[in-house]
Amino acid sequence: MHTRNAFGLVVLLFVLAACATGGPSGGRLVLEDEGSFFVNGQSYRSEHPGASLNTGAAPPGNITIKQMYVQYRVPAEKSGPAIVMVHGSQHTGKTYETTPDGREGWATWFVRRGHPVYVVDQAGRGRSGFNPTPVNAVRDRGGDPKALPIFFLGPIERAWANFRFGPEYPKPYPGLQFPLEALDQYLAQLVPNSETTLEGGGVNTVNALAALLDKIGPAVIFVHSQSGVYGLDVVRKRPNLVRALVSVEGGCETLTSKDAAGPFSKVPFVSVWGDNSVGAWGVNGDKRRNGCVQAVNYIQSAGGKATFLLLPEAGVKGNSHMMMMDKNNLEVAGLIRRWISENVR
Amino acid sequence: MHTRNAFGLVVLLFVLAACATGGPSGGRLVLEDEGSFFVNGQSYRSEHPGASLNTGAAPPGNITIKQMYVQYRVPAEKSGPAIVMVHGSQHTGKTYETTPDGREGWATWFVRRGHPVYVVDQAGRGRSGFNPTPVNAVRDRGGDPKALPIFFLGPIERAWANFRFGPEYPKPYPGLQFPLEALDQYLAQLVPNSETTLEGGGVNTVNALAALLDKIGPAVIFVHSQSGVYGLDVVRKRPNLVRALVSVEGGCETLTSKDAAGPFSKVPFVSVWGDNSVGAWGVNGDKRRNGCVQAVNYIQSAGGKATFLLLPEAGVKGNSHMMMMDKNNLEVAGLIRRWISENVR
Repeated sequence: MHTRNAFGLVVLLFVLAACATGGPSGGRLVLEDEGSFFVNGQSYRSEHPGASLNTGAAPPGNITIKQMYVQYRVPAEKSGPAIVMVHGSQHTGKTYETTPDGREGWATWFVRRGHPVYVVDQAGRGRSGFNPTPVNAVRDRGGDPKALPIFFLGPIERAWANFRFGPEYPKPYPGLQFPLEALDQYLAQLVPNSETTLEGGGVNTVNALAALLDKIGPAVIFVHSQSGVYGLDVVRKRPNLVRALVSVEGGCETLTSKDAAGPFSKVPFVSVWGDNSVGAWGVNGDKRRNGCVQAVNYIQSAGGKATFLLLPEAGVKGNSHMMMMDKNNLEVAGLIRRWISENVR
Repeated sequence: MHTRNAFGLVVLLFVLAACATGGPSGGRLVLEDEGSFFVNGQSYRSEHPGASLNTGAAPPGNITIKQMYVQYRVPAEKSGPAIVMVHGSQHTGKTYETTPDGREGWATWFVRRGHPVYVVDQAGRGRSGFNPTPVNAVRDRGGDPKALPIFFLGPIERAWANFRFGPEYPKPYPGLQFPLEALDQYLAQLVPNSETTLEGGGVNTVNALAALLDKIGPAVIFVHSQSGVYGLDVVRKRPNLVRALVSVEGGCETLTSKDAAGPFSKVPFVSVWGDNSVGAWGVNGDKRRNGCVQAVNYIQSAGGKATFLLLPEAGVKGNSHMMMMDKNNLEVAGLIRRWISENVR
């Protein structure tokens, strides 16, 4: 081989290697773009914007509420549809980032597989902010404490069974895939459900997701737990912009046979469930799961594409309600990605 | 030139170009790693964790509070010290991301220039969550409304002068660099100061920043506005781990001549100020700026490295208090990066 040519090839291989490998998580990541923006913000006159500890009380004026924070990563090499990832109750977009024990999360993994990924904080939560007025109003006017919004943040003793780490705190299920050794990192990501400060609560996230699709175009939507029913609403609002709805143990109970014959006739749907939900008494047990079996049946009966994926039936054992953080989270992601490739045009 | 060699070079140049260009913002970005984690979380027994709208009231139990969310991006090619970016009052880490009008923010820009960048949400704000207990306690027990924490979120009519968009709402300063055409996107990023739900308030961010440095090692710290004094406290706590403190219109009023002769004798300091602050009556006017001139004088007198950088004196005009979002934000970033290269060992 010609010497100069060999040198060129060596340098080429070195550059290719530098583009493809390395990194303590899943390896080097080449992005075309990344950034963040808001959708659905609305100007609101607050009569009680509160007082700065530094500069004193603020007179009434206009603040922005109901906005939804969206952070996006676009891979340099695209090989799949855009994905919007929506978290559940007491969580933020952090749900889909690095796992509690420091492994790669779904947000990064799907980017690495060629999908533009949009991770949101539900309207009223996390970086989407919330409306302070209902609290400040009670404080400033000496109002009725019962008028205060409820800020729910479930303690671990309760979350344990609901998120199916085990039958009761602190006993884990045998073979549990959730990284309990990093429980402190997991609990740090939980936040109060402050969307209760917004008129309509979760409706604002539905509206914001519709606005997001109007802005970015058609996308697959991932919903989790609480946001399962929000996903159904987004399909109803934007059937032509949802390329598929991936419901990770999301509630399905509002889906009717009329929905199945209507918007869901053209939107593929998969309901993914982990292990140990059969017989489970918590919110993520039999009732919610059976509602999803029924939803899948409705859609299939109407001729649409719908899949009920119970992971242990597919040979994938031990997954909790927080399967995007479980030790086999990328195996689950792989199953979902295969379903997308088989069901999304 | 040999044909095969020429082919190899063409492919090589193509690959190099693919690694370096493209993208609607600042171009292709090659990361060694990216992800997120928490520091400083503490387990806390909440007697009033609130009630889920879905599953009802929760009994008392353990939640996590005082944690700080950290999102990091590590470039594939490193050519500068790690940077931790801390936002100010009513903001989150979004401050340093994409600008309101969709241009590249400082977080991405410094990564592109070879710095590992860690963007935080102050403890008690945004993705760091907050403690819902003080609100729920008043609600559940019918307690004294005056015991409620204050959730401050300043209206635009007030922020306008404080952030120096203009002398009074809605009149802008002539030559203002802030992208007022995207004011709606900017206002969407403001959130209530919910760290008031945490005992100690901002102290928790100081403690969390110290814990972050203990974890990641020495770094340059950027602080803005409210977090200016937090940065001074971090230098006092970890003088050997702060490689420099970059204070973007941060408060300097707690810095003493004793600090200057102590921890600041080995930590380079720069106080960066935008335009139109001279004679400004708001919180980011003469008083705060003069406090920073005094701090710089203290450090210089004690033999340390300190710079007072008033941008209009350096020929850079029209910058607001939110200079990381201004139209010339990358010009300002370039000045700061040059200061780092000249002052950080």
